[in-house]
Amino acid sequence: MGKADDTRQRILAAATAEFAAHGLAGARVDRIAEQARINKAQIYHYVGNKDALFDAAVAGHVAANLDRVPLTVDDLPGYAARLYDAYVADASLVRLLTWSRLERRPSGDLFDTPHHDGPALARLYEAQAAGRLVDDVEVEDLWSMLIALCGSWAQASLTLTADSTDPEEVHARRRRALSTAVTRAFVLGR
Amino acid sequence: MGKADDTRQRILAAATAEFAAHGLAGARVDRIAEQARINKAQIYHYVGNKDALFDAAVAGHVAANLDRVPLTVDDLPGYAARLYDAYVADASLVRLLTWSRLERRPSGDLFDTPHHDGPALARLYEAQAAGRLVDDVEVEDLWSMLIALCGSWAQASLTLTADSTDPEEVHARRRRALSTAVTRAFVLGR
Repeated sequence: MGKADDTRQRILAAATAEFAAHGLAGARVDRIAEQARINKAQIYHYVGNKDALFDAAVAGHVAANLDRVPLTVDDLPGYAARLYDAYVADASLVRLLTWSRLERRPSGDLFDTPHHDGPALARLYEAQAAGRLVDDVEVEDLWSMLIALCGSWAQASLTLTADSTDPEEVHARRRRALSTAVTRAFVLGR
Repeated sequence: MGKADDTRQRILAAATAEFAAHGLAGARVDRIAEQARINKAQIYHYVGNKDALFDAAVAGHVAANLDRVPLTVDDLPGYAARLYDAYVADASLVRLLTWSRLERRPSGDLFDTPHHDGPALARLYEAQAAGRLVDDVEVEDLWSMLIALCGSWAQASLTLTADSTDPEEVHARRRRALSTAVTRAFVLGR
């Protein structure tokens, strides 16, 4: 990795932590510069303004996490349980996405072009056409409901956000509840 | 209403709009003062500091909305459809709650004492004991999943946030999808 790449990575790592904690408006570029051991002018040189820095930090973190929990269309309950664990393990992911929603994209698709959810939707269509998923709900609606359900205890929960310090039996109970609900709501031939 | 109450109401209305749009860190007390036609010192006199103003605005907005969509434990699918409509109609409610989650209560219960969700949980326990709801999922987990599912297209959605300008047939399709999923996931004897 060249020196420029290394500097850019250091800036993005510091930016990711700062934005996850404080959001776009609440983040301080001064603090990011301090954490990255760099001066503010260099940040603007490497990444651009605060908005561009936010977008780059979110995009980078999402890309790094996308492959961690692959969508298993033939095992949606297992996918849901793994997503529960992923949200507990990485408290930044849902926070970054939610700040992005509140501060950048108040309505419509959270991700725009190319459609971020496209591959997932295509695989769900296939599974639905093959008779493995309920066929009286549109795939795009099923996807929105599935992701919402998997986030029941995530960092934007309107009821209770799971914490990594919760007892393991509570995590296990939630995973089971989630898998059960996902099976009942969406899976055929269960 | 006395002059002091009237002033306080005007401050809270302006604060609610400002916080819903920008969150706690992003809100500007100057803008709230301007909207409320009052000076900043008076805001601090009537409501206290910015944090107290945020908490008062959120609490007031939540209280005003709580009775609008009563929990109908014998008609959870109908409740879900009505909550969908309520979120579309009032874009501020979920935004305020989500800012509160991100900026004030990153983990655990969103509401603390007295347990805000207590009455809802008590009625769900009753319905479960009477055999009308699935009995292999704890009521507190059922509640978290139900609220998450109802927020599938709300203002913190990680997929797609519904907009009041969406075609009515799309709203109708989502309401049906949601009611169907809630029935399958949680209701017995359907």
